[in-house]
Amino acid sequence: MAAERLVVIGGDAAGMSAASQARRFKGPDELSIVAFERGHFTSYSACGIPYWVSGDVDGREELVARTPEEHRARAIDLRTRTEVTEIDVEGRRVRALDRESGESYWTAYDKLVIATGARPVRPDVPGIDAPGVHGVQTLDDGQALLDSLDKAPGRRAVVVGAGYIGVEMAEAMLKRGFEVTVLDRAPQPMSTLDPDMGRLVHEAMDGLGITTVNGAAVTRILTGRDGRATGVETEKGTYPADVVVLGIGVEPETTLAGAAGLPLGAHGGLLTDLSMRVAGHDDIWAGGDCVEVLDLVAGRTRHIALGTHANKHGQIIGANIGGGYGTFPGVVGTAVSKVCDLEIARTGLREKDAHAAGLRYVTATIESTSRAGYYPGARPMTVKMIAEYRTGRLLGVQIVGREGAAKRVDVAAVALTAGMTVEAMTALDLGYAPPFSPVWDPVLVAARRAAAAVREAGSA
Amino acid sequence: MAAERLVVIGGDAAGMSAASQARRFKGPDELSIVAFERGHFTSYSACGIPYWVSGDVDGREELVARTPEEHRARAIDLRTRTEVTEIDVEGRRVRALDRESGESYWTAYDKLVIATGARPVRPDVPGIDAPGVHGVQTLDDGQALLDSLDKAPGRRAVVVGAGYIGVEMAEAMLKRGFEVTVLDRAPQPMSTLDPDMGRLVHEAMDGLGITTVNGAAVTRILTGRDGRATGVETEKGTYPADVVVLGIGVEPETTLAGAAGLPLGAHGGLLTDLSMRVAGHDDIWAGGDCVEVLDLVAGRTRHIALGTHANKHGQIIGANIGGGYGTFPGVVGTAVSKVCDLEIARTGLREKDAHAAGLRYVTATIESTSRAGYYPGARPMTVKMIAEYRTGRLLGVQIVGREGAAKRVDVAAVALTAGMTVEAMTALDLGYAPPFSPVWDPVLVAARRAAAAVREAGSA
Repeated sequence: MAAERLVVIGGDAAGMSAASQARRFKGPDELSIVAFERGHFTSYSACGIPYWVSGDVDGREELVARTPEEHRARAIDLRTRTEVTEIDVEGRRVRALDRESGESYWTAYDKLVIATGARPVRPDVPGIDAPGVHGVQTLDDGQALLDSLDKAPGRRAVVVGAGYIGVEMAEAMLKRGFEVTVLDRAPQPMSTLDPDMGRLVHEAMDGLGITTVNGAAVTRILTGRDGRATGVETEKGTYPADVVVLGIGVEPETTLAGAAGLPLGAHGGLLTDLSMRVAGHDDIWAGGDCVEVLDLVAGRTRHIALGTHANKHGQIIGANIGGGYGTFPGVVGTAVSKVCDLEIARTGLREKDAHAAGLRYVTATIESTSRAGYYPGARPMTVKMIAEYRTGRLLGVQIVGREGAAKRVDVAAVALTAGMTVEAMTALDLGYAPPFSPVWDPVLVAARRAAAAVREAGSA
Repeated sequence: MAAERLVVIGGDAAGMSAASQARRFKGPDELSIVAFERGHFTSYSACGIPYWVSGDVDGREELVARTPEEHRARAIDLRTRTEVTEIDVEGRRVRALDRESGESYWTAYDKLVIATGARPVRPDVPGIDAPGVHGVQTLDDGQALLDSLDKAPGRRAVVVGAGYIGVEMAEAMLKRGFEVTVLDRAPQPMSTLDPDMGRLVHEAMDGLGITTVNGAAVTRILTGRDGRATGVETEKGTYPADVVVLGIGVEPETTLAGAAGLPLGAHGGLLTDLSMRVAGHDDIWAGGDCVEVLDLVAGRTRHIALGTHANKHGQIIGANIGGGYGTFPGVVGTAVSKVCDLEIARTGLREKDAHAAGLRYVTATIESTSRAGYYPGARPMTVKMIAEYRTGRLLGVQIVGREGAAKRVDVAAVALTAGMTVEAMTALDLGYAPPFSPVWDPVLVAARRAAAAVREAGSA
């Protein structure tokens, strides 16, 4: 019997994790694997690009977990610079275009993995494609930005977007010695937080010397005589720039899948079942930044582009294809980030998410410290907790602080997964010693306040 | 109607939290509160004493959360230097001895809180009471040790005991410029960990310049002509010392309660119900280091002396006495500690606890890093996970590492509380960004390995 053929579209985290995991289960005599990647690189940490640009990470090689050669050494027929241009679901084949030779050809599959990732959102404004305007989605993007910094006539950087990528790139440009202005159309930076917590980020960014302008949708990129970007025009004013970084966020790259008639969700991502199989298609899997995932708190799908999910998806897909078993039950929406020494974290629902999900809720916001107040290095943090009215079920947590703040959100992530009430959380046996926590961990303080808010609201 | 009288025995975390919380619920017209404390201080962080001795914390005042004067200002009749010498349960009264005046008197109560804390274990060997031998249980102990350091003829410190207090005191003495030897009778330091993890602590302590001698039970304290300790004799040899610190651990201080016929458990601690009421006694509560707590994983009571539990107990007792409501469901046994930059954490059951609880189990031990491997400051850590055979329920986690290691144990503490399986833990949505975690958080890596071990054991 001939080996089955697995075709993988996309050579980053989800696709190559799936290929590698499937290979662990089945050797080349049972399963042949062909993987297509349109860029030069495989299995790299896109989340690490801001730290490469900042200089914290020496070179792009450090961001590559596994090179094309390493994949090939494990009997994966990896074809870089080769773009899949069509999926023929009926005919069980894909068409690939070799970007070096220009040659196009069909490849048949028994099983298909779609891991086409996400594409950066680019505002549709004049000048957006000018030299000196840079996305930071791929290693090629990162290299282009670094090359561009050398050519920048001055030291003014404008970052468009104040979400995770935006604030991380603000730090990176600051570390590169640029004067940084962040422009965002939302009322506060970090719109993945509630505005009251976003305001804390705004204030802290001010303190770090980063100018943040909110309510400033971009209307035009200004260019000079040589065509290079010279500034960013917004509804609020014009900001001169020697380099412009787009950090607005991403949307699922599902052009191929959509054209092939595969099911897409409300956010444009592929819809899968719990085994990461594309809904209604027994031999097609999808994972990573091109799929929608179930939000376990809100009970509906979302699009979240995050390396840790992509890696999980890949492992699960690979196991299922290889004859093992795995499922991805969903997410609670945990995310952590930092800008210099400012740490930002969130999980679960924001107020507006809770409202949109039809949930009535109470909130509690507290201030505490990362260590016992008397211990050297204790830093302040603000924790906001959202709980369901009456049931007291935890709905979400947001944290803004300094060292030791962000990863505390993991406690809430597990509690959300377990469906805990904030009252039950007050009894959690969290690690305590003065160098690590006040005697009441900030998460416990927030839980106590939230539990009191639930009781007060319930008796109102 | 006259106010009810609440009597509190013990002026530290549990006792004064109970008094303060009860006061929040009821004013002096409804509830009079008398609190007895045999020492000079109230509401202080005993856990902070090593950091005061080390010099990390400036003075003992910083360790005091609330002074006697502050308590008195809240209408609590706090009597320091006054020791309760008898509880008359039948007569609902306690006898107190004023240690200044020598006067003894009876005080009636309607409701009683016993928060007598713990006493340090002192080996019953010749010389143990010599000058230069110091416990570190109270602020008075800490002051005595600091005074003694000034008088020490040389710079050799011997710490007896290699548990939390012992290793923290080893760090403190090292920071004070002493040459430190830690003696312990167990086969590895940190016997709250399994020996394989304790060995990692041993190696790391070696690297820090701390000499650790295991299997060395103390047989005698050697003394000089002036009576001051000059060395420690053990079964393994004799170790010269200019100062000796006892860091062996504590046992519940329940002499009073035992004499009064109140119920004590197998570990010598008071037994309470879920509301922290002494079992069978409707008007007597107990909390903090003098009680036994339910171990939610093993399903039996344990004695754990820890400020965070004492504070929770106090809050719950105070609320219940004040007419509110609260319960303490139990613990999972979380503890974190550090020796210089070495971080140590554990929660749940060790292998021998699982065995003693009648559980069959599998283990998995992995190495990972605190941040993405390429991110500056990524430090190694070892995570050991124990899961029940067949069901795959998480039973325990131990972590030894450097910065960023210890508080990761909180994820396991919540998972234990929720009764999660290690398989379910592999899907946890933990915060990921390169400065905070590898793309697979070390806890997830351990969970994956443990889940595989469960499957392998199940099919064996």
